[in-house]
Order: sequence, then C-alpha cells, then structure tokens
Amino acid sequence: MSISTGQQFSYAKRVQNVPQSFVREILKVASNPEIISFAGGLPNPSLFPVKELEACSATAFQKFGRQALQYASTEGLYPLREFIANRYKQRHKLDVSPEQILITNGSQQALDLIAKLFINPGDKVVVERPGYLGALQCFSMFQADILEAGLDNDGINTQELDGLLSCNPVKFFYGIPNFQNPTGISYTEEKRRKTAGILARHGTPFIEDDPYGEISFGYKTPAPIFSHLPDQTILLGSFSKIIAPGLRLGWMLANPEIIRKATILKQASDLHSGNLTQYILCEFLAKHDLDMHIERIKQQYEHQCKVMLEAIHHYFPFSISYTRPLGGMFCWLTLPQGITARELLQRALKENIIFVPGDTFYARDADPQTLRLNFSNVAEDAMKQGLRKLGSMI
Amino acid sequence: MSISTGQQFSYAKRVQNVPQSFVREILKVASNPEIISFAGGLPNPSLFPVKELEACSATAFQKFGRQALQYASTEGLYPLREFIANRYKQRHKLDVSPEQILITNGSQQALDLIAKLFINPGDKVVVERPGYLGALQCFSMFQADILEAGLDNDGINTQELDGLLSCNPVKFFYGIPNFQNPTGISYTEEKRRKTAGILARHGTPFIEDDPYGEISFGYKTPAPIFSHLPDQTILLGSFSKIIAPGLRLGWMLANPEIIRKATILKQASDLHSGNLTQYILCEFLAKHDLDMHIERIKQQYEHQCKVMLEAIHHYFPFSISYTRPLGGMFCWLTLPQGITARELLQRALKENIIFVPGDTFYARDADPQTLRLNFSNVAEDAMKQGLRKLGSMI
Repeated sequence: MSISTGQQFSYAKRVQNVPQSFVREILKVASNPEIISFAGGLPNPSLFPVKELEACSATAFQKFGRQALQYASTEGLYPLREFIANRYKQRHKLDVSPEQILITNGSQQALDLIAKLFINPGDKVVVERPGYLGALQCFSMFQADILEAGLDNDGINTQELDGLLSCNPVKFFYGIPNFQNPTGISYTEEKRRKTAGILARHGTPFIEDDPYGEISFGYKTPAPIFSHLPDQTILLGSFSKIIAPGLRLGWMLANPEIIRKATILKQASDLHSGNLTQYILCEFLAKHDLDMHIERIKQQYEHQCKVMLEAIHHYFPFSISYTRPLGGMFCWLTLPQGITARELLQRALKENIIFVPGDTFYARDADPQTLRLNFSNVAEDAMKQGLRKLGSMI
Repeated sequence: MSISTGQQFSYAKRVQNVPQSFVREILKVASNPEIISFAGGLPNPSLFPVKELEACSATAFQKFGRQALQYASTEGLYPLREFIANRYKQRHKLDVSPEQILITNGSQQALDLIAKLFINPGDKVVVERPGYLGALQCFSMFQADILEAGLDNDGINTQELDGLLSCNPVKFFYGIPNFQNPTGISYTEEKRRKTAGILARHGTPFIEDDPYGEISFGYKTPAPIFSHLPDQTILLGSFSKIIAPGLRLGWMLANPEIIRKATILKQASDLHSGNLTQYILCEFLAKHDLDMHIERIKQQYEHQCKVMLEAIHHYFPFSISYTRPLGGMFCWLTLPQGITARELLQRALKENIIFVPGDTFYARDADPQTLRLNFSNVAEDAMKQGLRKLGSMI
C-alpha cells in the first residue's frame, strides 16, 4: 500500500543560503578526457604514494584488523594526533599537545564544526576577499553575515580588517595565510604580526586554515599566526594535499577547552572520522619520510607553476594582471576590461578548456574580471596549449 | 612573540544544548579488559570480515589506486549507490534508483544532514520514548524542541503520536522501527501501516532509521514504512552493523529533490565520505555473498540474545520486566521500585560490570528504573557471570 501524499517537507531557513558549488559543477564536465582543466582544486594524483599506502593498508589490517574496523574515539587515533603535534613542534617550534588536536574529515569538516561552535544566525564573520568557496558555503549554511576584507599581495589588507572589526561585533576572522585558495597569495611575516596584533586588540578569534602551507616553492613559510596568538586561534590542517584527499583526513588544533566542545559536536555529527584510514595513515607516517615525499610534490608543483607563469607571460596580453604564487596550487588572474571571466569561459568551453570564474569566490559584489587557474593537476603540454588558446581568446 | 589574551571565543547557542554522550563516557572505562561491558553499542568484532576486506583493499589499490585516493563526488560512488538500491529491490521490492541515495559517514551523518535540512531553532520534532541517543544529541544541537511518543511492545504508541501531531506543528517524526536502540522493540506490520496512515493524514515526514533491520532472528522483517509512504519518508541505512563501523559508511534514501539538497549541504559539511573505503566496500560487495555473511552475524547474535534472556530469567527477580528482541543488539530492562539504574551502576562498577542507565535515552522526565543491555559484544561466559552478579545486586 502506497499512500499518495503531496510534498510535506518544509526546509530550514539555512537551506536557502547555500549556493551549490559552481566549482564542483564544472568538475563534472572535467571527467571528459579531452578537456584541459584549470578548474579543479585537485592535487596531482601521479604523486599519490599508492604503492606505499597499499602496503600500509595490508600492515594495518594485519596488525590492527578488528580494532581498525570497529567504532573508535571521536577525537581520533592518538598516535596520529601525536604525529601532528610533533610536526608543529619540528616545523614551527609550536608547543602543542595531542589533546589539542581533533581529527576531522578533511579540513572542510573542521569548518562545519567551527560554524556549529560559534555561528548563531545573523552573526558576523570576516573572510578574505576573494575567499575559499568551501568556507563561504559552510558559513552561509549557518546563516552567518559574511563581511569581506580585501587581500593585498602581501596578505590581508590590515586597514580594511581593522575597520571591519572596529565597526562590527565579529565572531571570527577566517583566512588562509599560506598560498591562499583562490589567489595563491601568502601573508608575509610582517603582515602576520600585524594581523595578530589587530586581532588581539579587538579580541577577535582567528580561524587559520592551512591546507597548503607545506607546499612551498623554495621559500621558508613563516610560522602560522597561531604562534603569535595561540589562545585566540584555531589552526586547521589537512592530509589531502600532502598525502591523498581520498583518505578524508584533516584536523583542528585549538586550546583544549575548544577541542572538548568541538569533540562533543563531532560526536553528534558523525561519531568519528574513518578509523581504518587513520590506521593506514599512521602506518604510512611511521614508515615513510613525509618530508621527502612532500619534497617531490613541491618540486613538481613548482615546475608546473613556473610553466604556467611563463605561458601567461608569453601568451596573454600585457594588460592582464596575475599573482605569482610561492606555493600551493592556484594562480589568480584579472582580465582587462572588455571581457568577463564568464564570457571567456563560454568561449573556452568550445575549445574544451575550463577554469573557474573568480566571481564564485566573493560573498558579494563579485569582480567579474577575475578567474582562478589551477596548476597542480595539469600536464605541462596541455597547460601550454590551453593557456596559448586562452591567451588568444582574450 | 606570543600576544597574551583572554578567552575571546563566544559560543553559539546550540553548543549549550548538546549533552556529552554518557554512553561514550562509559565506553572509556570499557577499555579495561577486566570489565564486563553491557554498555557499548558495538558490533562483535570477531564477525568482521577482516581477511576479506584486506584482500578487497589490495584489489581496490591495484585497480583504482589513484582514483580511490583522489577527491570524489559528494553523492558517493555510483556502484555503491546502485548496490544499495538493488538490495532494497531484492529485500522489499522497493522501486528506488541510485540517484535517490546519498552516501554518508555512517547514518549518524545522515541525521546531521537531516537536522540541517529541516530544523530551525525551536522547531518541534517527535522521537520515540525512549529514543536513540545520537538522534537526541543531533536534534538538540540544532535546537529542536523534542517531543516524545511512547513505545509499546509492538512499536510506537500511535495514539500518543496522533495526539502530538494533532496539537503541534511537527517537522518530522524520527524512529527506528526494527530492533530499536535502546529497547530492541520492533514495529509490527500492522503498526507500520497504522503509523504510515497517521503520518500521511498529518502530512508529517518520517525519518526511518534502520541500522539493525538486517540483523533479525529467524523472523522476516516487515517492509520499511518507506514502502507505505515513499514521498514522505527518508530512510537511513548503515554498513556499520552488517560489515564494519570503522569504514564509516552509511546512506540516506529519499526522493531525488531531497537528495539534491542534502548533497549540497554535505558538500559544505565535508565534501564527500571516505573514497578509499567506498572502493574497498564495493569490492567486498561485488566479491562476497553479503547474505551469507549476515547469516553468520544473525546466528551469533541470536544465540547471545538467547543466553542473555535466559540469564535474566534465571538470575533476576521476578519483579523485573524486559523486552524480548527479535533482532538487533539491545535488550531493555525496567527495574522494580527501590533501586534506580544509576544506583545499580554504582554497585556494578565495583564488580567491574557496566551498562547504560536508561535515563540517558529520554529527552525529558527520564525513567530512572530503566537500563540498556547490549548482547552483541559480550562473550557467553562473561555474560552469564555478569548477569548473575547484576541479578544478585538488585
């Protein structure tokens, strides 16, 4: 017996607030192998340590089989949290304990937990302009009022940030100080200190998202803003760009009180992150030299970035402006007046080329002249060919 | 330079609403090997197909290595969604398509997405009394006003349900019609039809959680309420109890419009569920006979349930009442007046025995005489010994 009824579901207000990711829509086109895609935010799969992870998976099954397949603690596997804490000690002399780390499903879930922790509908948060789409989506879902502070070439525009914090009660400032998505811009040491000072003065917490910090091109990444403002910062990290996103493992570092609260919210959200994959990852980190692995990623991405910047310089009109990333996966272009990124995309699609129009990365008053190009996952020849064609279209 | 600041974080209202799971607190004690634990909700790890999953993992790495380690679609792996849709066809003649299925991190994440989809602060939802703690936590986190309808031995008390729906605007009714957690109670065929009728009449959506439906003891589980009310029901499933929870994979079945909206929310929540584990699971489902595997689980749990019921009958005073589950993992006891479950737990802890006091499973006006006993993960001898001691304490 099937009782016929009308549509009885009535959605929550937050549902109207979440734009579907245009990036992920474009990526559906990208499965066509003839497409030259500058659109994705994907790490290069040729650098995934497939054989090594396969062996680590076998070991994890043999050593911890039943345990790795059972329910686990919400906080995450202790040795994994220890590894992360130690790495902060080694890289940046941060004195943090495993108890300050919560394992999440990539850093995107950390954003979800942070939104749950702090955002009441209508609360104001500040993000970078342009900013990470996944954060815009997540904060919108929780009905935040999103304010934007502009990005300069050396990091956040501190005057704008200061102005916003002076005029508004703000729950937190969210930013990506290393090789930002979508622009590739990094905060200088000086800018970090200044930003920390402003945040301290206003008592505004900082959500420091750092998925790309390890992928630097012959450049010593300054210490995270967390090091200047440990009580007031939540630092997010991810294994997606340095090992593999398919494991879905990232983390949140914060003071123990926040981690305890975030753990309760995670418990109600999905109990815990993948247990088997945490065991596999732990094996990998114990057996392999992560620095050496990351070195290979850095070298390849640095080369691909160089090829991209040279091709842009060579094929694109002089009137274009673009960032020169010191790491990460993205470059950001501003087109001359006369053609918008959406118009360019329409033409590019006919030539089987795709990229993400920059207007996607603004909370309001989008700049239609901007676009994001990914260099981590485009083969050298395709990159040159694609950029030559794009250049001739502009 | 470390700028010293006070605590600047100001939590959202929802944070005050989420009680930490007492169950998970008790489970921390349970890691002591001398403890006899009736507390967990854990499947029996001796039944995990460790060898098989290890082999499937090797195959997944070899066949799909880079793909399985890359970012993936939010909806989940298509063949996995196909498998789930087909199984509904085989088991219950449900005509559902893979497009109606969204892969989640266990069914707990489906609850999070449902709360995101439907609950505005203060919205009323109806749950079973007593009800699943993870749902109470999740709906509380989203500031729902939780109403409770009592459970009878044949399922929800339809009079109470009808009464609540008549007097209140209710966003949805949430229940577990098969071998409920915490009571082990199942809805009869008759009760399902009646429930569907009431929900149809009031136009109230049903969230049908079904993690245990496949674990039935020589008893043909009636078709889900979804089959009576497909446009108005969201049906949740999980691989945690039939394969292994450490994979963190479950799903949500609903009409395509809801799945589309839930997919956008999941995108903002954690992009997608574990990709590698989805490939491993797909290999397992393609290569092995799931029915045969589940048959082994059913036989063992049925035996353990029988041992538990016999021991209760044998060792407990006549004045106690308890459910006689037809499947699942839990039995529910009501103590005679004179001793509460919390008092019993204090005594039991001294004898290294733990269980979950039933008051945890109520939204309000908890019954202090009740308690939940898990039988899936207790060895036969320990079970007899533990129940004998418990019986003598009462």
